[in-house]
Amino acid sequence: MRTTETARDPYPSAEWLEATIEDLKELIRERADGFILNIIRELRPADLAILIRHLSKDERLYFFSLLEKQRAADVFTELDAPLQEELARSVGDQRLTEVIDEMDSDDATDVVAGLPEEVAEKVLENIEMEDSAEVRELLEHREDSAGGIMAKEFVAVNQNLTVDQAIQKIRHMAEEIEDIYNVFAVDDEGRLVGAVPLQELILARPGMKVQHIMDDNVVYVTTDVDQEEVARLFKKYDLVSIPVVDENRRLVGRITVDDIMDVIEEEANEDAQKVAGIIDLDLTETSPLKVSRSRLPWLVISFVGEIVNGLLMSRFEASLSKVLYIAFLVPLVMAIGGNVGNQSAIVIIRGLATGEVDIIEMGKRLRNELWVSLLLGVILAIGIYLVSGVWFGDFRLGFVIGVALLLVVINAAFIGTLLPFLLKRFNIDPAVATSPFISMSNDILGLLIYFGVVTIFLNWMA
Amino acid sequence: MRTTETARDPYPSAEWLEATIEDLKELIRERADGFILNIIRELRPADLAILIRHLSKDERLYFFSLLEKQRAADVFTELDAPLQEELARSVGDQRLTEVIDEMDSDDATDVVAGLPEEVAEKVLENIEMEDSAEVRELLEHREDSAGGIMAKEFVAVNQNLTVDQAIQKIRHMAEEIEDIYNVFAVDDEGRLVGAVPLQELILARPGMKVQHIMDDNVVYVTTDVDQEEVARLFKKYDLVSIPVVDENRRLVGRITVDDIMDVIEEEANEDAQKVAGIIDLDLTETSPLKVSRSRLPWLVISFVGEIVNGLLMSRFEASLSKVLYIAFLVPLVMAIGGNVGNQSAIVIIRGLATGEVDIIEMGKRLRNELWVSLLLGVILAIGIYLVSGVWFGDFRLGFVIGVALLLVVINAAFIGTLLPFLLKRFNIDPAVATSPFISMSNDILGLLIYFGVVTIFLNWMA
Repeated sequence: MRTTETARDPYPSAEWLEATIEDLKELIRERADGFILNIIRELRPADLAILIRHLSKDERLYFFSLLEKQRAADVFTELDAPLQEELARSVGDQRLTEVIDEMDSDDATDVVAGLPEEVAEKVLENIEMEDSAEVRELLEHREDSAGGIMAKEFVAVNQNLTVDQAIQKIRHMAEEIEDIYNVFAVDDEGRLVGAVPLQELILARPGMKVQHIMDDNVVYVTTDVDQEEVARLFKKYDLVSIPVVDENRRLVGRITVDDIMDVIEEEANEDAQKVAGIIDLDLTETSPLKVSRSRLPWLVISFVGEIVNGLLMSRFEASLSKVLYIAFLVPLVMAIGGNVGNQSAIVIIRGLATGEVDIIEMGKRLRNELWVSLLLGVILAIGIYLVSGVWFGDFRLGFVIGVALLLVVINAAFIGTLLPFLLKRFNIDPAVATSPFISMSNDILGLLIYFGVVTIFLNWMA
Repeated sequence: MRTTETARDPYPSAEWLEATIEDLKELIRERADGFILNIIRELRPADLAILIRHLSKDERLYFFSLLEKQRAADVFTELDAPLQEELARSVGDQRLTEVIDEMDSDDATDVVAGLPEEVAEKVLENIEMEDSAEVRELLEHREDSAGGIMAKEFVAVNQNLTVDQAIQKIRHMAEEIEDIYNVFAVDDEGRLVGAVPLQELILARPGMKVQHIMDDNVVYVTTDVDQEEVARLFKKYDLVSIPVVDENRRLVGRITVDDIMDVIEEEANEDAQKVAGIIDLDLTETSPLKVSRSRLPWLVISFVGEIVNGLLMSRFEASLSKVLYIAFLVPLVMAIGGNVGNQSAIVIIRGLATGEVDIIEMGKRLRNELWVSLLLGVILAIGIYLVSGVWFGDFRLGFVIGVALLLVVINAAFIGTLLPFLLKRFNIDPAVATSPFISMSNDILGLLIYFGVVTIFLNWMA
């Protein structure tokens, strides 16, 4: 048992967790509840979730039953969707209701949304009426909108209250609400008019009115704003929470920075999958059938595209049978074209994502990339001129291949730069510009340029 | 003038900013300071930074001179490194000193670290002594460590103080320190012993001792912990700030979540660049020479690799001249191998990054991916069997090509899955597993398998 280690360290190491899983499995087998509770006493929900993930289904169920309500709710929230679903189905409706009752409204909504309809309905009937109404309200919003990720737990005070009265109000609410960073000020109709950091409230004289110390230029969003836009605002304005309002500017929810971290991670996963041509897949999905289904479509498109590529190549059969060598450079032309295109695209994609590159800079960027590709292209062209001149014993052919490669490089950089801007203009995620579909098109264009230039030369020679 | 629009909207739209740049340029030409200040009055630092970025060098300098000290400091902090450098060199030492004096210690340190040594020394001599000492201390740490990104602005109270005394102390410090979310509790030696959310402090009875309401199981880091690990802790434990301690556990700094957002963005940029084979480049860098230099190394490696690939292909010249067709499928073999490998790699890379995949799951994941690749491989193999059978009029050759493609797919999936785990095990960023270097190695392996299998068949036929 390594329990003492966690007491000394600020957080458990991966090695400790790994070793603890084995201990835990044994203790569960022996039903040694006291030992188990002792090991996990100091652990935080996120670490408990890691342990749970590595248990078998039965071990998991037993372990979860040992946790007291609030802790069980916190751990449940940290689990991946497939595991949540599994546990929800196996713990029994009563325990499930009890656990969901302890969750914040946004987490409860996520869980309920993932349940089969009959179970969800039963849970909503059994949890406290107030919670149930909140969850039902939140379920109305699109999952990836501000309304879909907001929580109903926030502190709002009337702008006419004094600082002292506001603090009294917080005292009443703070038991139920975690992570209060800002208190939102509303008018008599419940419309958002400002925000006061908790810190300011402590500093201000007790008799002052909230409206005199609040920031009335507060960043807020309406419920329909996309979660990606909300994340952008958090990053841009260094926010820790943002108020969410309805179409009449009435305060209806709050989003905190920890939820935004999840959004950023989710979006990063989605982007990475787009780049790899994987359709909408949970990282933890392990069914080979489901995984294959999410990957196959792009592979098939790529398959068809490269067959077309082969057919195009076969049109140059005459050149190829004259000089078989030129086939040996096909991988080089494809790889260099692909790499140059990706390099250009990645810079623009990341720049657009972080705001460091602006869509109005397109002309400037294109000019820039053309210079860069001219420079890189000439260097690589000289390289291939020398290599193929020596290899094939024909420096005139080498020169022509060099010119072809230069054109391939310039073309790749141009497309790699232009495409993310165009996608952004049409509101498509620019990250798609490095997807297999695009690489395939680049392959075709690159080889057309290569074989085209070489064939013109060979014909001219003949 | 669209000034009224910002007053109504919670934040300015990209279109508004774009249009305002034109107005601003004209007003700067006319030196219409009153109008300028009126336009920007309600704007936040991040938006002012966007405006500044689109001005010319002279316009920028003039505009910056109009901002009062604190605002200038906030805006300066939001600018990209190259622009900070440009402004720092042109505003004059006195203004620069005055502006840096208004910054938080972490931001001031970043700015000073980017200045030429003589200018930096002059600034450090002229800013307030306390700030200067803090900046000098922070400069000692590695830029990408907890010490390198922490700020000296934090609130620490002795654990023996009462809640009331603690609040008094915050009142004294809060003028200088923004974004207080947690108050850190220390013992008589200044060692970190706990943390109290501001919210708890407001809730607690005034006479209670801090040590009785504090959380003594607080997550903290030492100054040498890598910033990526710090970011991981923020995400995992949903933190808004983390205390930083020295080797004796004495509290020396604090990192807040807005800095971590920047770290996440920085790391995402670095990852994307690694994937594209770009070496350490600022997204805003526009000098074609510098940009080319950062991209050339990988292109050259890829160039050399693909020449080797061509040389290997030329060893199969006999097969190729016998059946030229098989050259037409080279792009297909490369593309399918590359795509399958990337799909497998991306899932593991993202999984390891988010913690949803664990290094101890390697065996399970490999088995899984082998099943997936078997499934995908068989489907694609049947496809190529039919296509090449019809196309080349030889279904026996088609069958052999199908077998070759199946092996290529399984190999790619295997390597794509294994590599990120191995890299992680050796503490190398798993993201490298989709870099051009790896794709190049995959190209070579894939074509070797393809030509190898086909050649064995052709020889056996002969």
